[in-house]
Amino acid sequence: MSDIYDLLIIGGGPAGLTAAIYASRAGLRYLMLDKGYPGGQVANTDMVDNYPGLPGISGIDLAGKLLEHAENMGMELVMDEVTDLDVGDEIKTVHTLGGEYRAHNLLLCTGASPRKLGVPGEEAFRGRGVSYCATCDGAFFRGKKTVVIGGGDTALQDALYLSAFCESVTLVHRRDAFRGNDQLQKKLPQHQNIHLEMSSTALAIEGTDRVSGVRLSTPSGEKLIPADGVFIAVGTIPNSALLRGKADTNEGGYVITDQYRRTSIQGVYAAGDVRDTVLRQILTAAADGAIAVQSMLEL
Amino acid sequence: MSDIYDLLIIGGGPAGLTAAIYASRAGLRYLMLDKGYPGGQVANTDMVDNYPGLPGISGIDLAGKLLEHAENMGMELVMDEVTDLDVGDEIKTVHTLGGEYRAHNLLLCTGASPRKLGVPGEEAFRGRGVSYCATCDGAFFRGKKTVVIGGGDTALQDALYLSAFCESVTLVHRRDAFRGNDQLQKKLPQHQNIHLEMSSTALAIEGTDRVSGVRLSTPSGEKLIPADGVFIAVGTIPNSALLRGKADTNEGGYVITDQYRRTSIQGVYAAGDVRDTVLRQILTAAADGAIAVQSMLEL
Repeated sequence: MSDIYDLLIIGGGPAGLTAAIYASRAGLRYLMLDKGYPGGQVANTDMVDNYPGLPGISGIDLAGKLLEHAENMGMELVMDEVTDLDVGDEIKTVHTLGGEYRAHNLLLCTGASPRKLGVPGEEAFRGRGVSYCATCDGAFFRGKKTVVIGGGDTALQDALYLSAFCESVTLVHRRDAFRGNDQLQKKLPQHQNIHLEMSSTALAIEGTDRVSGVRLSTPSGEKLIPADGVFIAVGTIPNSALLRGKADTNEGGYVITDQYRRTSIQGVYAAGDVRDTVLRQILTAAADGAIAVQSMLEL
Repeated sequence: MSDIYDLLIIGGGPAGLTAAIYASRAGLRYLMLDKGYPGGQVANTDMVDNYPGLPGISGIDLAGKLLEHAENMGMELVMDEVTDLDVGDEIKTVHTLGGEYRAHNLLLCTGASPRKLGVPGEEAFRGRGVSYCATCDGAFFRGKKTVVIGGGDTALQDALYLSAFCESVTLVHRRDAFRGNDQLQKKLPQHQNIHLEMSSTALAIEGTDRVSGVRLSTPSGEKLIPADGVFIAVGTIPNSALLRGKADTNEGGYVITDQYRRTSIQGVYAAGDVRDTVLRQILTAAADGAIAVQSMLEL
C-alpha cells in the first residue's frame, strides 16, 4: 500500500514549479512528476525579457532558477512518465512507466507542444531539416539557407535569431500582417538577410535525404524557396491527453478550469499552458500554479 | 490640447510595473502614474520568498528590480496623485493634483490598504504605538512589549519578525485556529517570547500620550495586555475609490473584472490587489498586469 499524498504535480514547467513552491510553504505532502528534467518550454527558449524582475535572462537560466527555488523549498522530484490517471474516486491514482502514485489532489501542468503544419514532407524530414525550435536547433544551420513559417512572436523571434548566423531567412506568413509584437516587427527590416513572403502558405517541404526547399503558394503563384532548414512556428497544442474524455476541454483540447483552476473533475486542477486561458506566458503559468495550490488549501 | 495616450497605468506596484513592461514591448504609448515612488505594498514587505526565481529577496529589493526592469524597457513615470476619472467617453481623462491626462485605455493598479480594526484608540494612537506594518515600524520597538492582532499569514509573519528583537509579542486572534500557513504556525512555539491569546478580540487600545496596552475580551474575561506597540494585521481593503459608483464592484469594494481584466466600463481595466480575485500575491498581480495589456492589444 503506497503512501497517499496531498498532491501530485504532473509537469515541471513554470506552473508546476511554482505550485511546488507554494505547496512546500503550505506544508503539503506532495511529489513533482516530470518525464524528464523540469523546466518546460522555457528551458528551450533563447531569451526571456518579460519575466518581471529578471530582464534579459536566458530560458535555460530562468528554468534553472525556478527549479532551484522549488528544490530549496523542499520539492521532491520523480523523473517518470505519467501514462494514465484514475480520477473517478476521492483518492486519485497516477500510473507511470515505473509504478503508481496516489493522492487526494492532482495538478496537471503538462503545458503545450508545437503545432504541426500538416504538409507533405513535414514528418519525413523532422530532424533532417524540419525543426519546431529555432533556439534549440538553429546552430546546426550556420551559414545555411532557412525558412521560418508563422506570424506570431515566436516566428518573428526565430527569424531574428537565425538571421544572425544563417545565410538567409525567408519568413513565410499566410496573412498580410504579422500578429507578433511591434518591437519585433520593427527589427525585421534591419536585417538584410531576412526576406518576407506574406499572404503565402507552405504546400510541401521538399528534399531527398534532407530538406532542400519549401514549396509555397504565393499571391503571384507557386514558388520553390531553396532551404536547408525549415522552422515551423505556427502555435502550440495542449498536452492534455491524460484528461481526454475525463475532464471538460475546449474545442482546441485545452482543459477548462474555473477561477480556482479546478477542472470539471473534483480534486483535479490544471495550471499553465494546458489550460483554456487568455494568455500563455511564463508569468501567467506561474501565477496559475500558485492559485491552484492556494485553492486546494482554502476550498 | 494634450496628447492622447494608448494607455494610462494608475499605480506602480507589481501589477502596474508588469503592465508597463508588456506595454513597452507592445509599442504602446503610455504613462505610469503613481502618487509616490513605485513599488506598492511590496516595498513595505520585509522578506519575499514565494516570487518564483527570486527566493529570499527583500521587498524593497524586489520592488526595485521590477521598477528597474520597467524603466529599462522605456517606462515613463509621472509622480502625481490621481483625484478623479472621466470614463464615460471613448477618450478617458485622468485628473491629477498637477493636471490631466487622456488616453484610450485606463488600467487601475491601485492595490489595497490595511483594514482598520475599528476600536477606540486605534486612530488616536496611530503613529504613536499603533502600526499596520511590522516590517516598516517594528524596529522602533526594540526591547519593548508588542501586540499583534490577526490570524493570517501577515499576522504570523509579523509576530515572528518582531519576536527577534522585541521583549515580548502577544498574538491576538479572534478564532481558535490561525488561517496562516502551516510552516509559519509551526515556527511560533520556537519563540519563547511569543504568547498566544486565541478566541480573543481587542476591545480598545489604551494609553495617554502613547499606547500603553490593549484591552482584550478573552474566554476567561477581560484582560489588559501591557504594550508599547500594537501591530494590526486583519486584512486589506481595496483602493478602488476612483471607480466607485462607476464600475461594478463586489460587496468588499473590489473591482469586478472578466478573464481579460476588463471592468464593467469599456476601455477601463483593473489588475492586482484592487481586483475581485481569488488570490492576492505579487506573482498574481504581475500576471494580471500582463493579461490586461495583452487583452487591450487583442480585443
